[in-house]
Amino acid sequence: MRHLGVCALAASCAGAQALQGGAHDPRASRPPLQYTAPFQDRWRQPVTLTPIGWISSPYKERFGTPRQPTVTRQVAGRRAQEGTIELAADVGLRHSLRSLEGFDYCWVICYMHMNTGWRPLVTPPRGPRKMRRGVFATRAPHRPNQLALSALRIREVQAEELRIKVTGLDLLDGTPVLDIKPYIPYADAFPNAAAGWVDELGSPHAPDHLDYFPPPPHLESSE
Amino acid sequence: MRHLGVCALAASCAGAQALQGGAHDPRASRPPLQYTAPFQDRWRQPVTLTPIGWISSPYKERFGTPRQPTVTRQVAGRRAQEGTIELAADVGLRHSLRSLEGFDYCWVICYMHMNTGWRPLVTPPRGPRKMRRGVFATRAPHRPNQLALSALRIREVQAEELRIKVTGLDLLDGTPVLDIKPYIPYADAFPNAAAGWVDELGSPHAPDHLDYFPPPPHLESSE
Repeated sequence: MRHLGVCALAASCAGAQALQGGAHDPRASRPPLQYTAPFQDRWRQPVTLTPIGWISSPYKERFGTPRQPTVTRQVAGRRAQEGTIELAADVGLRHSLRSLEGFDYCWVICYMHMNTGWRPLVTPPRGPRKMRRGVFATRAPHRPNQLALSALRIREVQAEELRIKVTGLDLLDGTPVLDIKPYIPYADAFPNAAAGWVDELGSPHAPDHLDYFPPPPHLESSE
Repeated sequence: MRHLGVCALAASCAGAQALQGGAHDPRASRPPLQYTAPFQDRWRQPVTLTPIGWISSPYKERFGTPRQPTVTRQVAGRRAQEGTIELAADVGLRHSLRSLEGFDYCWVICYMHMNTGWRPLVTPPRGPRKMRRGVFATRAPHRPNQLALSALRIREVQAEELRIKVTGLDLLDGTPVLDIKPYIPYADAFPNAAAGWVDELGSPHAPDHLDYFPPPPHLESSE
Protein backbone atom coordinates (compact mmCIF):
# COMPACT_ATOMS: atom_id res chain seq x y z
CA MET A 1 0.00 0.00 0.00
CA ARG A 2 2.95 2.28 0.59
CA HIS A 3 3.69 2.00 -3.11
CA LEU A 4 0.34 3.50 -4.00
CA GLY A 5 1.01 6.57 -1.88
CA VAL A 6 4.46 7.06 -3.34
CA CYS A 7 3.00 6.60 -6.77
CA ALA A 8 0.37 9.30 -6.49
CA LEU A 9 2.81 11.77 -4.95
CA ALA A 10 5.56 11.07 -7.47
CA ALA A 11 3.18 11.29 -10.38
CA SER A 12 1.98 14.73 -9.37
CA CYS A 13 5.57 15.91 -8.81
CA ALA A 14 6.59 14.67 -12.22
CA GLY A 15 3.64 16.51 -13.72
CA ALA A 16 4.70 19.74 -12.04
CA GLN A 17 8.25 19.27 -13.30
CA ALA A 18 7.00 18.74 -16.81
CA LEU A 19 5.21 22.05 -16.68
CA GLN A 20 7.86 24.13 -14.95
CA GLY A 21 11.12 22.28 -15.66
CA GLY A 22 13.74 24.01 -17.74
CA ALA A 23 15.17 22.48 -20.90
CA HIS A 24 18.37 21.68 -19.01
CA ASP A 25 16.77 19.35 -16.50
CA PRO A 26 16.52 15.97 -18.23
CA ARG A 27 14.09 14.79 -15.58
CA ALA A 28 11.54 17.29 -16.84
CA SER A 29 10.76 14.89 -19.66
CA ARG A 30 10.42 11.82 -17.47
CA PRO A 31 7.12 10.07 -17.88
CA PRO A 32 4.93 10.24 -14.76
CA LEU A 33 5.82 7.60 -12.20
CA GLN A 34 3.39 4.73 -11.95
CA TYR A 35 4.18 1.66 -9.93
CA THR A 36 3.42 -1.93 -10.81
CA ALA A 37 1.70 -2.85 -7.53
CA PRO A 38 -1.85 -1.94 -8.64
CA PHE A 39 -1.37 -4.17 -11.70
CA GLN A 40 -0.19 -7.19 -9.73
CA ASP A 41 -2.93 -9.59 -10.79
CA ARG A 42 -3.37 -8.13 -14.23
CA TRP A 43 -1.31 -10.91 -15.83
CA ARG A 44 -4.23 -13.36 -15.60
CA GLN A 45 -6.52 -11.26 -17.76
CA PRO A 46 -6.92 -12.26 -21.41
CA VAL A 47 -5.28 -9.92 -23.87
CA THR A 48 -7.10 -8.87 -27.04
CA LEU A 49 -5.02 -7.63 -29.94
CA THR A 50 -6.05 -6.18 -33.29
CA PRO A 51 -4.00 -7.28 -36.30
CA ILE A 52 -2.25 -4.37 -38.03
CA GLY A 53 -2.11 -6.14 -41.38
CA TRP A 54 -1.43 -9.42 -43.07
CA ILE A 55 1.21 -11.45 -44.88
CA SER A 56 1.05 -11.94 -48.62
CA SER A 57 3.00 -15.14 -49.18
CA PRO A 58 3.53 -17.78 -51.87
CA TYR A 59 2.85 -20.44 -49.22
CA LYS A 60 -0.80 -21.40 -49.43
CA GLU A 61 -0.67 -24.43 -47.15
CA ARG A 62 1.57 -25.61 -44.36
CA PHE A 63 3.21 -28.38 -46.39
CA GLY A 64 6.28 -26.94 -48.11
CA THR A 65 6.49 -23.92 -45.81
CA PRO A 66 9.94 -23.66 -44.25
CA ARG A 67 10.39 -24.18 -40.52
CA GLN A 68 12.48 -20.99 -40.20
CA PRO A 69 12.85 -17.94 -42.45
CA THR A 70 16.53 -18.67 -43.00
CA VAL A 71 16.18 -22.35 -43.85
CA THR A 72 15.72 -22.51 -47.60
CA ARG A 73 16.95 -25.98 -48.47
CA GLN A 74 13.49 -27.46 -48.10
CA VAL A 75 11.88 -24.61 -49.98
CA ALA A 76 10.68 -24.73 -53.58
CA GLY A 77 13.62 -23.91 -55.81
CA ARG A 78 15.83 -24.11 -52.72
CA ARG A 79 15.77 -20.35 -52.38
CA ALA A 80 14.08 -17.82 -50.11
CA GLN A 81 10.66 -16.93 -51.45
CA GLU A 82 9.40 -13.37 -51.76
CA GLY A 83 6.35 -11.93 -50.10
CA THR A 84 5.01 -8.72 -48.60
CA ILE A 85 3.77 -7.39 -45.29
CA GLU A 86 0.64 -5.38 -46.01
CA LEU A 87 -0.51 -2.93 -43.37
CA ALA A 88 -4.19 -2.16 -42.86
CA ALA A 89 -5.20 1.09 -44.50
CA ASP A 90 -7.80 2.09 -41.94
CA VAL A 91 -6.12 2.10 -38.53
CA GLY A 92 -3.99 5.25 -38.72
CA LEU A 93 -0.68 3.64 -39.68
CA ARG A 94 0.33 6.32 -42.14
CA HIS A 95 3.98 7.36 -41.39
CA SER A 96 4.44 4.31 -39.15
CA LEU A 97 7.11 2.83 -41.46
CA ARG A 98 9.21 5.99 -41.71
CA SER A 99 12.96 5.26 -41.15
CA LEU A 100 12.51 1.50 -41.47
CA GLU A 101 14.16 1.43 -44.89
CA GLY A 102 17.68 1.56 -43.38
CA PHE A 103 17.30 -1.78 -41.61
CA ASP A 104 18.32 -5.09 -43.19
CA TYR A 105 15.86 -7.16 -41.14
CA CYS A 106 12.68 -6.69 -39.23
CA TRP A 107 11.02 -8.84 -36.60
CA VAL A 108 7.46 -9.75 -37.42
CA ILE A 109 5.18 -11.13 -34.73
CA CYS A 110 2.21 -12.91 -36.25
CA TYR A 111 -0.78 -14.93 -35.13
CA MET A 112 -0.64 -18.40 -36.67
CA HIS A 113 -4.31 -18.42 -37.59
CA MET A 114 -4.46 -21.92 -39.10
CA ASN A 115 -3.06 -23.74 -36.09
CA THR A 116 -5.18 -24.98 -33.24
CA GLY A 117 -4.36 -27.05 -30.20
CA TRP A 118 -1.04 -27.63 -28.49
CA ARG A 119 0.69 -30.08 -26.18
CA PRO A 120 3.34 -29.44 -23.50
CA LEU A 121 5.65 -31.98 -25.21
CA VAL A 122 6.31 -32.00 -28.95
CA THR A 123 8.44 -33.98 -31.40
CA PRO A 124 10.39 -31.51 -33.57
CA PRO A 125 10.76 -32.18 -37.33
CA ARG A 126 14.49 -32.81 -36.78
CA GLY A 127 16.42 -34.90 -34.28
CA PRO A 128 15.69 -38.38 -32.92
CA ARG A 129 12.13 -39.32 -33.84
CA LYS A 130 11.11 -40.44 -30.40
CA MET A 131 12.65 -37.54 -28.50
CA ARG A 132 10.02 -35.17 -27.22
CA ARG A 133 10.87 -31.64 -26.11
CA GLY A 134 9.03 -29.09 -24.03
CA VAL A 135 7.01 -26.84 -26.32
CA PHE A 136 8.87 -23.75 -25.04
CA ALA A 137 12.20 -25.36 -25.98
CA THR A 138 10.98 -25.52 -29.59
CA ARG A 139 9.65 -23.21 -32.28
CA ALA A 140 6.68 -25.53 -32.85
CA PRO A 141 3.76 -23.62 -34.40
CA HIS A 142 1.30 -25.35 -32.08
CA ARG A 143 1.77 -23.51 -28.78
CA PRO A 144 -0.44 -22.04 -26.04
CA ASN A 145 -0.53 -18.68 -27.80
CA GLN A 146 -0.05 -19.19 -31.52
CA LEU A 147 2.52 -16.42 -31.90
CA ALA A 148 5.11 -16.59 -34.66
CA LEU A 149 8.42 -14.74 -34.52
CA SER A 150 10.24 -14.27 -37.83
CA ALA A 151 13.31 -12.22 -38.72
CA LEU A 152 12.52 -11.25 -42.31
CA ARG A 153 14.94 -9.67 -44.79
CA ILE A 154 13.68 -6.27 -45.86
CA ARG A 155 13.92 -5.82 -49.65
CA GLU A 156 11.97 -2.60 -50.02
CA VAL A 157 9.88 -0.38 -47.79
CA GLN A 158 7.02 1.26 -49.64
CA ALA A 159 5.92 3.51 -46.80
CA GLU A 160 3.25 5.38 -48.74
CA GLU A 161 1.64 2.11 -49.82
CA LEU A 162 1.97 0.71 -46.26
CA ARG A 163 3.88 -2.24 -47.66
CA ILE A 164 7.19 -3.99 -46.92
CA LYS A 165 8.66 -6.35 -49.50
CA VAL A 166 10.49 -9.18 -47.76
CA THR A 167 12.25 -12.47 -48.42
CA GLY A 168 12.77 -15.47 -46.24
CA LEU A 169 9.16 -15.94 -45.31
CA ASP A 170 8.11 -18.93 -43.22
CA LEU A 171 4.55 -17.61 -43.00
CA LEU A 172 1.36 -18.63 -44.72
CA ASP A 173 -0.60 -16.36 -47.02
CA GLY A 174 -3.09 -14.25 -45.08
CA THR A 175 -1.39 -14.64 -41.70
CA PRO A 176 -2.44 -11.76 -39.40
CA VAL A 177 0.46 -9.47 -38.41
CA LEU A 178 0.47 -8.15 -34.85
CA ASP A 179 3.72 -6.18 -34.67
CA ILE A 180 6.81 -5.17 -36.63
CA LYS A 181 10.06 -4.17 -34.93
CA PRO A 182 13.44 -3.24 -36.38
CA TYR A 183 16.21 -5.83 -36.05
CA ILE A 184 18.99 -4.25 -33.97
CA PRO A 185 22.16 -6.36 -33.74
CA TYR A 186 23.33 -5.12 -30.33
CA ALA A 187 20.04 -6.27 -28.82
CA ASP A 188 19.20 -9.25 -31.01
CA ALA A 189 22.36 -10.93 -32.33
CA PHE A 190 24.10 -13.55 -30.20
CA PRO A 191 25.87 -15.59 -32.88
CA ASN A 192 27.70 -17.78 -30.38
CA ALA A 193 24.76 -18.51 -28.10
CA ALA A 194 24.34 -22.16 -27.17
CA ALA A 195 21.21 -23.72 -28.64
CA GLY A 196 20.90 -26.90 -26.59
CA TRP A 197 19.42 -29.85 -28.44
CA VAL A 198 19.46 -27.93 -31.74
CA ASP A 199 23.28 -27.71 -31.56
CA GLU A 200 23.42 -31.50 -31.33
CA LEU A 201 21.68 -31.90 -34.68
CA GLY A 202 24.55 -30.63 -36.79
CA SER A 203 23.79 -28.52 -39.83
CA PRO A 204 20.69 -26.35 -39.49
CA HIS A 205 20.05 -27.03 -43.17
CA ALA A 206 19.82 -30.80 -42.73
CA PRO A 207 16.51 -32.28 -43.87
CA ASP A 208 13.47 -32.53 -41.64
CA HIS A 209 11.50 -35.72 -41.09
CA LEU A 210 9.03 -34.33 -43.59
CA ASP A 211 10.23 -34.66 -47.16
CA TYR A 212 9.33 -31.42 -48.90
CA PHE A 213 10.15 -32.77 -52.38
CA PRO A 214 8.50 -32.62 -54.75
CA PRO A 215 7.06 -29.29 -53.64
CA PRO A 216 3.28 -28.91 -53.58
CA PRO A 217 1.73 -28.02 -56.97
CA HIS A 218 1.18 -24.33 -56.28
CA LEU A 219 4.86 -23.85 -55.50
CA GLU A 220 6.23 -26.11 -58.22
CA SER A 221 5.24 -23.75 -61.02
CA SER A 222 7.18 -20.87 -59.48
CA GLU A 223 10.53 -22.61 -59.86
CA MET B 1 -13.02 -21.98 -55.29
CA ARG B 2 -10.78 -24.51 -56.94
CA HIS B 3 -8.57 -24.35 -53.87
CA LEU B 4 -11.40 -25.48 -51.64
CA GLY B 5 -11.96 -28.57 -53.75
CA VAL B 6 -8.29 -29.44 -53.82
CA CYS B 7 -8.13 -28.84 -50.11
CA ALA B 8 -10.90 -31.25 -49.19
CA LEU B 9 -9.59 -33.94 -51.50
CA ALA B 10 -5.97 -33.56 -50.41
CA ALA B 11 -6.91 -33.54 -46.75
CA SER B 12 -8.74 -36.83 -47.05
CA CYS B 13 -5.86 -38.37 -49.03
CA ALA B 14 -3.37 -37.26 -46.42
CA GLY B 15 -5.56 -38.80 -43.75
CA ALA B 16 -5.64 -42.08 -45.61
CA GLN B 17 -1.87 -41.99 -46.00
CA ALA B 18 -1.44 -41.39 -42.31
CA LEU B 19 -3.47 -44.49 -41.57
CA GLN B 20 -2.03 -46.83 -44.19
CA GLY B 21 1.40 -45.36 -45.01
CA GLY B 22 4.46 -47.41 -44.19
CA ALA B 23 7.23 -46.09 -41.94
CA HIS B 24 9.45 -45.59 -44.98
CA ASP B 25 7.24 -43.08 -46.69
CA PRO B 26 8.06 -39.73 -45.10
CA ARG B 27 4.89 -38.28 -46.57
CA ALA B 28 2.86 -40.54 -44.34
CA SER B 29 3.51 -38.16 -41.47
CA ARG B 30 2.60 -35.02 -43.40
CA PRO B 31 -0.05 -32.96 -41.68
CA PRO B 32 -3.34 -32.91 -43.59
CA LEU B 33 -3.39 -30.34 -46.36
CA GLN B 34 -5.43 -27.26 -45.64
CA TYR B 35 -5.27 -24.23 -47.89
CA THR B 36 -5.25 -20.61 -46.83
CA ALA B 37 -8.07 -19.46 -49.13
CA PRO B 38 -10.91 -20.06 -46.64
CA PHE B 39 -9.01 -17.94 -44.09
CA GLN B 40 -8.45 -15.01 -46.44
CA ASP B 41 -10.29 -12.38 -44.39
CA ARG B 42 -9.42 -13.86 -41.05
CA TRP B 43 -6.64 -11.33 -40.48
CA ARG B 44 -9.14 -8.62 -39.54
CA GLN B 45 -10.53 -10.53 -36.59
CA PRO B 46 -9.31 -9.55 -33.13
CA VAL B 47 -7.03 -12.11 -31.51
CA THR B 48 -7.49 -13.04 -27.86
CA LEU B 49 -4.53 -14.53 -26.04
CA THR B 50 -4.23 -15.93 -22.54
CA PRO B 51 -1.03 -15.11 -20.65
CA ILE B 52 0.98 -18.19 -19.74
CA GLY B 53 2.64 -16.52 -16.77
CA TRP B 54 4.26 -13.34 -15.57
CA ILE B 55 7.60 -11.62 -15.05
CA SER B 56 9.03 -11.20 -11.57
CA SER B 57 11.33 -8.21 -11.93
CA PRO B 58 13.17 -5.67 -9.75
CA TYR B 59 11.72 -2.92 -11.95
CA LYS B 60 8.59 -1.60 -10.28
CA GLU B 61 8.07 1.44 -12.46
CA ARG B 62 9.07 2.47 -15.96
CA PHE B 63 11.63 5.03 -14.86
CA GLY B 64 15.00 3.30 -14.51
CA THR B 65 13.95 0.29 -16.60
CA PRO B 66 16.42 -0.25 -19.44
CA ARG B 67 15.36 0.27 -23.03
CA GLN B 68 16.85 -3.09 -24.10
CA PRO B 69 17.83 -6.19 -22.13
CA THR B 70 21.45 -5.82 -23.16
CA VAL B 71 21.81 -2.13 -22.32
CA THR B 72 22.93 -2.01 -18.71
CA ARG B 73 24.75 1.28 -18.47
CA GLN B 74 21.61 3.12 -17.43
CA VAL B 75 20.62 0.38 -15.01
CA ALA B 76 21.06 0.52 -11.24
CA GLY B 77 24.59 -0.61 -10.43
CA ARG B 78 25.29 -0.58 -14.17
CA ARG B 79 24.74 -4.30 -14.38
CA ALA B 80 22.04 -6.63 -15.68
CA GLN B 81 19.39 -7.20 -13.04
CA GLU B 82 18.03 -10.63 -12.16
CA GLY B 83 14.46 -11.75 -12.40
CA THR B 84 12.32 -14.77 -13.15
CA ILE B 85 9.72 -15.91 -15.63
CA GLU B 86 6.99 -17.64 -13.65
CA LEU B 87 4.61 -19.91 -15.54
CA ALA B 88 1.00 -20.31 -14.49
CA ALA B 89 0.46 -23.49 -12.50
CA ASP B 90 -3.05 -24.16 -13.75
CA VAL B 91 -2.92 -24.27 -17.54
CA GLY B 92 -1.22 -27.62 -18.19
CA LEU B 93 2.32 -26.35 -18.71
CA ARG B 94 4.00 -29.19 -16.83
CA HIS B 95 6.90 -30.53 -18.98
CA SER B 96 6.70 -27.52 -21.28
CA LEU B 97 10.20 -26.32 -20.30
CA ARG B 98 11.91 -29.68 -20.89
CA SER B 99 15.15 -29.29 -22.95
CA LEU B 100 15.22 -25.52 -22.53
CA GLU B 101 18.14 -25.68 -20.09
CA GLY B 102 20.70 -26.12 -22.90
CA PHE B 103 19.95 -22.71 -24.42
CA ASP B 104 21.82 -19.54 -23.46
CA TYR B 105 18.96 -17.22 -24.37
CA CYS B 106 15.24 -17.33 -24.82
CA TRP B 107 12.87 -14.97 -26.56
CA VAL B 108 10.07 -13.75 -24.38
CA ILE B 109 7.03 -12.11 -25.92
CA CYS B 110 5.11 -10.08 -23.36
CA TYR B 111 2.14 -7.77 -23.19
CA MET B 112 3.22 -4.36 -21.91
CA HIS B 113 0.28 -3.99 -19.58
CA MET B 114 1.08 -0.53 -18.21
CA ASN B 115 1.31 1.20 -21.57
CA THR B 116 -1.65 2.69 -23.34
CA GLY B 117 -1.96 4.74 -26.47
CA TRP B 118 0.38 5.04 -29.41
CA ARG B 119 1.24 7.36 -32.29
CA PRO B 120 2.49 6.52 -35.79
CA LEU B 121 5.52 8.79 -35.24
CA VAL B 122 7.66 8.69 -32.10
CA THR B 123 10.79 10.39 -30.76
CA PRO B 124 13.21 7.71 -29.54
CA PRO B 125 15.14 8.27 -26.28
CA ARG B 126 18.34 8.56 -28.32
CA GLY B 127 19.29 10.51 -31.43
CA PRO B 128 18.40 14.06 -32.45
CA ARG B 129 15.63 15.34 -30.20
CA LYS B 130 13.42 16.60 -32.95
CA MET B 131 13.77 13.60 -35.24
CA ARG B 132 10.63 11.51 -35.26
CA ARG B 133 10.60 7.93 -36.55
CA GLY B 134 7.85 5.61 -37.64
CA VAL B 135 6.74 3.53 -34.67
CA PHE B 136 7.61 0.29 -36.54
CA ALA B 137 11.16 1.57 -37.08
CA THR B 138 11.55 1.78 -33.28
CA ARG B 139 11.22 -0.45 -30.24
CA ALA B 140 8.99 2.12 -28.55
CA PRO B 141 6.80 0.47 -25.90
CA HIS B 142 3.78 2.47 -27.05
CA ARG B 143 2.65 0.66 -30.21
CA PRO B 144 -0.60 -0.54 -31.78
CA ASN B 145 -0.27 -3.91 -30.06
CA GLN B 146 1.74 -3.53 -26.87
CA LEU B 147 3.95 -6.53 -27.53
CA ALA B 148 7.46 -6.66 -26.07
CA LEU B 149 10.22 -8.82 -27.52
CA SER B 150 13.19 -9.53 -25.24
CA ALA B 151 16.14 -11.88 -25.63
CA LEU B 152 16.81 -12.84 -22.02
CA ARG B 153 19.86 -14.69 -20.72
CA ILE B 154 18.83 -17.98 -19.15
CA ARG B 155 20.56 -18.55 -15.81
CA GLU B 156 18.63 -21.57 -14.59
CA VAL B 157 15.61 -23.53 -15.73
CA GLN B 158 13.60 -24.91 -12.83
CA ALA B 159 11.24 -27.00 -14.93
CA GLU B 160 9.44 -28.65 -12.01
CA GLU B 161 8.74 -25.25 -10.45
CA LEU B 162 7.72 -23.83 -13.85
CA ARG B 163 10.30 -21.10 -13.41
CA ILE B 164 13.16 -19.66 -15.49
CA LYS B 165 15.77 -17.51 -13.78
CA VAL B 166 16.99 -14.83 -16.17
CA THR B 167 19.18 -11.74 -16.36
CA GLY B 168 19.03 -8.75 -18.61
CA LEU B 169 15.40 -7.92 -18.01
CA ASP B 170 13.90 -4.81 -19.52
CA LEU B 171 10.46 -5.77 -18.26
CA LEU B 172 8.36 -4.47 -15.40
CA ASP B 173 7.32 -6.60 -12.47
CA GLY B 174 4.06 -8.42 -13.16
CA THR B 175 4.25 -8.13 -16.95
CA PRO B 176 2.08 -10.85 -18.56
CA VAL B 177 4.09 -13.38 -20.60
CA LEU B 178 2.52 -14.63 -23.83
CA ASP B 179 5.20 -16.89 -25.28
CA ILE B 180 8.71 -18.25 -24.74
CA LYS B 181 10.86 -19.50 -27.61
CA PRO B 182 14.45 -20.80 -27.64
CA TYR B 183 17.08 -18.47 -29.13
CA ILE B 184 18.59 -20.25 -32.13
CA PRO B 185 21.57 -18.44 -33.68
CA TYR B 186 21.10 -19.73 -37.24
CA ALA B 187 17.62 -18.24 -37.31
CA ASP B 188 18.04 -15.24 -35.02
CA ALA B 189 21.61 -13.88 -35.13
CA PHE B 190 22.56 -11.40 -37.85
CA PRO B 191 25.45 -9.59 -36.17
CA ASN B 192 26.30 -7.54 -39.24
CA ALA B 193 22.78 -6.50 -40.13
CA ALA B 194 22.36 -2.80 -40.90
CA ALA B 195 20.28 -0.98 -38.30
CA GLY B 196 19.45 2.26 -40.11
CA TRP B 197 19.15 5.28 -37.88
CA VAL B 198 20.35 3.30 -34.85
CA ASP B 199 23.71 2.73 -36.56
CA GLU B 200 24.12 6.49 -36.92
CA LEU B 201 23.94 6.99 -33.15
CA GLY B 202 27.30 5.42 -32.37
CA SER B 203 27.63 3.31 -29.24
CA PRO B 204 24.46 1.49 -28.22
CA HIS B 205 25.44 2.19 -24.63
CA ALA B 206 25.42 5.95 -25.03
CA PRO B 207 23.03 7.76 -22.71
CA ASP B 208 19.38 8.32 -23.49
CA HIS B 209 17.64 11.68 -23.28
CA LEU B 210 16.28 10.51 -19.94
CA ASP B 211 18.88 10.66 -17.20
CA TYR B 212 18.45 7.48 -15.18
CA PHE B 213 20.71 8.69 -12.34
CA PRO B 214 20.17 8.64 -9.50
CA PRO B 215 18.14 5.44 -9.87
CA PRO B 216 14.65 5.40 -8.36
CA PRO B 217 14.58 4.61 -4.62
CA HIS B 218 13.47 0.97 -4.95
CA LEU B 219 16.46 0.19 -7.15
CA GLU B 220 19.00 2.32 -5.29
CA SER B 221 19.06 0.03 -2.28
CA SER B 222 19.93 -3.00 -4.39
CA GLU B 223 23.28 -1.58 -5.49
